[in-house]
Amino acid sequence: MGEFSFIEWIRKRQKRRKDVVLGIGDDCAVIDVSSDKLTLITTDMLVDGTHFDLKKCTVREAGRKAIACSISDIAAMGCQATVAVISICFPEHTTEKFARELYRGIWDISDKYNIRIVGGDIISGHGPFCINVTLLGRDDGLKPIRRSGARAGDAILVTGMLGGSILGRHLSFEPRLKEGLALNKNFTIHAMIDISDGLTADLNHILEESCVGAIIYEDQIPVSHAAMELSKKTGHTPLYHALSDGEDFELLMTLSKAQAKKVLSSDLLTDVKVSCIGEIVKGRGIQIKSSCGNIHRTKPRGYEHLKS
Amino acid sequence: MGEFSFIEWIRKRQKRRKDVVLGIGDDCAVIDVSSDKLTLITTDMLVDGTHFDLKKCTVREAGRKAIACSISDIAAMGCQATVAVISICFPEHTTEKFARELYRGIWDISDKYNIRIVGGDIISGHGPFCINVTLLGRDDGLKPIRRSGARAGDAILVTGMLGGSILGRHLSFEPRLKEGLALNKNFTIHAMIDISDGLTADLNHILEESCVGAIIYEDQIPVSHAAMELSKKTGHTPLYHALSDGEDFELLMTLSKAQAKKVLSSDLLTDVKVSCIGEIVKGRGIQIKSSCGNIHRTKPRGYEHLKS
Repeated sequence: MGEFSFIEWIRKRQKRRKDVVLGIGDDCAVIDVSSDKLTLITTDMLVDGTHFDLKKCTVREAGRKAIACSISDIAAMGCQATVAVISICFPEHTTEKFARELYRGIWDISDKYNIRIVGGDIISGHGPFCINVTLLGRDDGLKPIRRSGARAGDAILVTGMLGGSILGRHLSFEPRLKEGLALNKNFTIHAMIDISDGLTADLNHILEESCVGAIIYEDQIPVSHAAMELSKKTGHTPLYHALSDGEDFELLMTLSKAQAKKVLSSDLLTDVKVSCIGEIVKGRGIQIKSSCGNIHRTKPRGYEHLKS
Repeated sequence: MGEFSFIEWIRKRQKRRKDVVLGIGDDCAVIDVSSDKLTLITTDMLVDGTHFDLKKCTVREAGRKAIACSISDIAAMGCQATVAVISICFPEHTTEKFARELYRGIWDISDKYNIRIVGGDIISGHGPFCINVTLLGRDDGLKPIRRSGARAGDAILVTGMLGGSILGRHLSFEPRLKEGLALNKNFTIHAMIDISDGLTADLNHILEESCVGAIIYEDQIPVSHAAMELSKKTGHTPLYHALSDGEDFELLMTLSKAQAKKVLSSDLLTDVKVSCIGEIVKGRGIQIKSSCGNIHRTKPRGYEHLKS
């Protein structure tokens, strides 16, 4: 396989977007932003052996995951995803079939969300297969929802079911782009994040940025079937997995209790379960309220790279 | 070293730009583009053992090179660089000192060109050290210069001296951002590219995109001192290195002969030598004209990843 012939193959397959002035094939891509006020940008690097394992999954699944992770970041701001650039480091002796399968995985999801791949970089190296996606988004006239807006008295909502994503959903999850946009358009969300490090770890990001604390209702956590499956193997409780496991890629948000009530009774988010799992309080840190009413403090648990 | 403490260290050191609405520390960065019409985007991945060798250079030099390569891409469009997101895969057991030295290299050049690092991703993996830079640019009211505008009759100009960059300049080169902007603002450039793959390989990109051919004047190629040094080791001629070596990161452009004369006599590009090295002709491919007037065809030579 040659770099240039592979790029040509990608280039020919590209879907059109009218705001892309210049796509693959020059020194830069050029996007028409004249109708936007804000551009969002997010970047994610995934490497074989850490974020997926090509001994256990297909490269098509890895490609899908790489871009889905970035879409989830735009979803967490309640905005629209637009174009992406993708860098890939192929191990030596990579076949053209492998490279094309990767792009099929990318297109599986970029087509669905009308995201165009406008450029990239393809290199070869001695290490494992590695992919980096940078995704741009636009505000669509909405205000991007930050992590820093949580207020004491807010309810805490989460989409979907949590925990055990390592059993498969970390590859097949659907980024909540549609839901993030619908929430931003129709309700007043104070703070939002996607769950990538783990529920308590990501909630803690909101709390630190907002200078507030939280109480979580133990019996309201939407524990997934996978968390229960996983608990049989690990000896941890299903709840432990729901609170700590990374890569759920669900949306975690805080908003006034009145707004939360409206979200929970709305028919705008019918494809996904939404749960109220706690409330924002003055102070710092996370407290867990058990079903019998006891409250104890907990430390945020989740994945951190480079942790020594 | 912890991922979050390292990110906090980076975040505190950041310079301000008034168009950055939201920088490091949320799911996405947010850029105010309301005064722009166009956003440029380019991405480059560099991996230890391929693009630099940490046994022979410092990580500070590697960081500098990573962002300088992307700046060179924006320079090749004649536009202004603005903000970047940077993903890094550190090998396991990376020290905090190593990580900070990397960022010092990034800041060495981002500060100089007023580029703000607005986000990124930090991961750890089993492979070699790998870094990906995605850089955004703005049109500043100018038209981005493409590869596809070369016309028969154009002169071909190049900045700087060519060849032998592997001896050191591939790490220390100055991206021609100032020159690219000055050229776009003051002259009518038909096509432009930065030399990353090699003079003939990159010229060939312009020719293919523009559906034209070129004659190069052998005795007008600005052969660098490094190309001469390298030729003593390789047995190739210095000219061979000037025509074929990658990573010069100089600007290669085509423009009318009248405009070329103005560029060559202008005092806008005083910091860098500019040479007229040939002309664009009808047809296809590259011909080389020797000092005695003989003309022969040559194949573009340069670096291609994944070449089997």
